[in-house]
Amino acid sequence: MHTNDPSLKSFIAVSPESHFPIQNLPFGIFSTVADPVPRVGVAIGDFVLDLAALEDADLLDVPSEIFRSGSLNAFVALGHATWRATRDTISQLLRHDNPVLRDNPALRAEALLPQEQATMHLPMQIAGYTDFYSSKEHATNVGCMFRDPANALLPNWLHIPIGYNGRASSVVVSGTALHRPKGQLKLPESDNPVFGPCRKLDFELETGFLIGQPNALGEAIDINVADQHIFGMVLLNDWSARDLQQWEYVPLGPFNSKSFGTSISAWVVTMEALEPFRVASPEQQPAPLPYLQQQTDNGYDIALEVTLKTADSSAENILCKTNFKAMYWTMAQQLAHHTVSGCNTQVGDLMGSGTISGSTPDAYGSLLELTWNGQKPITLVDGTQRTFIQDGDEINMTGWCQGDGYRIGFGCVTGKILPAKG
Amino acid sequence: MHTNDPSLKSFIAVSPESHFPIQNLPFGIFSTVADPVPRVGVAIGDFVLDLAALEDADLLDVPSEIFRSGSLNAFVALGHATWRATRDTISQLLRHDNPVLRDNPALRAEALLPQEQATMHLPMQIAGYTDFYSSKEHATNVGCMFRDPANALLPNWLHIPIGYNGRASSVVVSGTALHRPKGQLKLPESDNPVFGPCRKLDFELETGFLIGQPNALGEAIDINVADQHIFGMVLLNDWSARDLQQWEYVPLGPFNSKSFGTSISAWVVTMEALEPFRVASPEQQPAPLPYLQQQTDNGYDIALEVTLKTADSSAENILCKTNFKAMYWTMAQQLAHHTVSGCNTQVGDLMGSGTISGSTPDAYGSLLELTWNGQKPITLVDGTQRTFIQDGDEINMTGWCQGDGYRIGFGCVTGKILPAKG
Repeated sequence: MHTNDPSLKSFIAVSPESHFPIQNLPFGIFSTVADPVPRVGVAIGDFVLDLAALEDADLLDVPSEIFRSGSLNAFVALGHATWRATRDTISQLLRHDNPVLRDNPALRAEALLPQEQATMHLPMQIAGYTDFYSSKEHATNVGCMFRDPANALLPNWLHIPIGYNGRASSVVVSGTALHRPKGQLKLPESDNPVFGPCRKLDFELETGFLIGQPNALGEAIDINVADQHIFGMVLLNDWSARDLQQWEYVPLGPFNSKSFGTSISAWVVTMEALEPFRVASPEQQPAPLPYLQQQTDNGYDIALEVTLKTADSSAENILCKTNFKAMYWTMAQQLAHHTVSGCNTQVGDLMGSGTISGSTPDAYGSLLELTWNGQKPITLVDGTQRTFIQDGDEINMTGWCQGDGYRIGFGCVTGKILPAKG
Repeated sequence: MHTNDPSLKSFIAVSPESHFPIQNLPFGIFSTVADPVPRVGVAIGDFVLDLAALEDADLLDVPSEIFRSGSLNAFVALGHATWRATRDTISQLLRHDNPVLRDNPALRAEALLPQEQATMHLPMQIAGYTDFYSSKEHATNVGCMFRDPANALLPNWLHIPIGYNGRASSVVVSGTALHRPKGQLKLPESDNPVFGPCRKLDFELETGFLIGQPNALGEAIDINVADQHIFGMVLLNDWSARDLQQWEYVPLGPFNSKSFGTSISAWVVTMEALEPFRVASPEQQPAPLPYLQQQTDNGYDIALEVTLKTADSSAENILCKTNFKAMYWTMAQQLAHHTVSGCNTQVGDLMGSGTISGSTPDAYGSLLELTWNGQKPITLVDGTQRTFIQDGDEINMTGWCQGDGYRIGFGCVTGKILPAKG
């Protein structure tokens, strides 16, 4: 039976709303108080399956130090065939009708831990971070606000999956609090900038994909095999200081406005698990240049949601609901474009989608768009208003593919904003 | 006697024009046919001193596996005190009046190799690559060509040491040939882009500095201690595809036009060796914001030169002579600005200066400026002309600080352009 078969069941009880049924099996890095060595785990229901423990029990065909190297990179570098074989073996071991793990209480105690006991770490050592700008709705909204509504899209946008190099060092795992950044702000009333804490702190709802199979310098990745280079996907919050960005970004792009932190979810959902949720992406007019023309559906149907929790209330304020399938440029196109110049990739490269905005105002993936650059404040459940993020606010993003009676989920990426440092 | 004392002499003969007298002692990674393990070496005259061999002989106080780990990162991560102590010890061992190495023929045979027998490797594993834009002359030239000569500098330029994230994966060591990149070009006669090999391939003369002491996420580096975070400097050629850049760069900055390759010199010249060549940098008007105000001279007097050799001639065509001391923004200011938002750095981060252009047309650091975007072709010694780089051309950059009877040199960064791949 195929690892994606909707009828597959695990001996671990998994509710239909869980993000982690046996059809998912995302990879992450975790540690526990009892064993503080960060190691590779797979999420199943409310549990983490410890792959290092499984290997110690001779159930996996990969050296156990690979699972204890502190990130997924060494495991992923073993290649495609190994990721798939490992996922297949885990799927077998977790099946309701397989006694090997199910009926071995000592091994279960060793290898299955409640997720609430696990501390999650950054899943991969991020080699490079590239961020794209692939939502037509987002690019249009930004163009309307800051340029000309009649010519909102720049001339290159419909031809190039526009991207830029982000800062890899400051990519952090979900749950990491970040201080409000400081920097240069140009206030409308003055010719000169001032220095201080960001006043227009924003999130950007994105997904990211992680490179599993690199290409060499000088060797472009063909669009028809681009998906084979991708290990899996995460949720990504591309925190953005809008006022810093507005002042600094000409002519070389965003820098300090983004480099203070980028948050990703802890579990990497494999492309194998996402395969049943492939869909066509929006029609592209004009037709892209041949190196960007796709033979297959490269969109994915992933429901996405952003909520905000203030410091003073436990209420979850829904800010946005949208779907990844609306993205104009696909991951395969992004990767083909990234490498067409000869640029090499590395295991652990993270590539962000760019802000994912839908066509309706409740589907916009940033406060910049939701409040139209602060002109339309949002009223929260507790009666307070928001134009941008305030100190103590926590932003939570979640996403999942809805199957028939099950979900292939990403968990969440969450992050709290602390006051600027002294 | 101080390691920088001009009167210091080595038992190794070093000519006054050599880049590598005993006052320099730059670090690099080399291997030989006889011993293909890449290891840490120090340049002295025409020789490489093998630090792994010195440690094997118990002459250095650092574990020898550190010197055989394939890059300088592990050694540099040991910290400031260790770099300096190691340099001090090497300086002692190489002195004309120290018999330890001088009078030990077996050790000399083991530890001193002619540079011509060494294959040089990338000196550090590049963690992140940031490129600045800190020459006022260069920014002005670009502004004159592509915007308005009357307002050549953008409003933010005199306030911010403008920088952007480059692509770290494609940083290569001097001597690495690169294929002409391909990408999207927008020709003036058409509304739509075409795909093909770059037609306006350029170099950018830069230096780069390498981070030795990192800062944590959220902790800005104070400008007054910024130089302590820098391990050393290299020469850098920021290859640029001008036609790709022109079409892609709005609004997120250069991407494919730069990511196909960036070349750096093989020897890292330490900040200790450069110390005697500190000079004041140009006066800054308006005064920068307080976090960018410097208490010390942070400029460096480094003579720079670019030559071109065609495939059909051995003649060296001098394209440009300039000096690093003309740079408006200093490395200390760049690093303080980079981290003021809370962005962390890592051992092995490379930070490029941006194109170094002087005030006269023979001091411009790119063909874009030297030929004024192709309008003023350069005639070479062999009678051929150049507007941009042709296939088979080799670009060579060199640089040195001129002392009294000696030079603290960088060697060179050289790279040949091969035809675009089929």
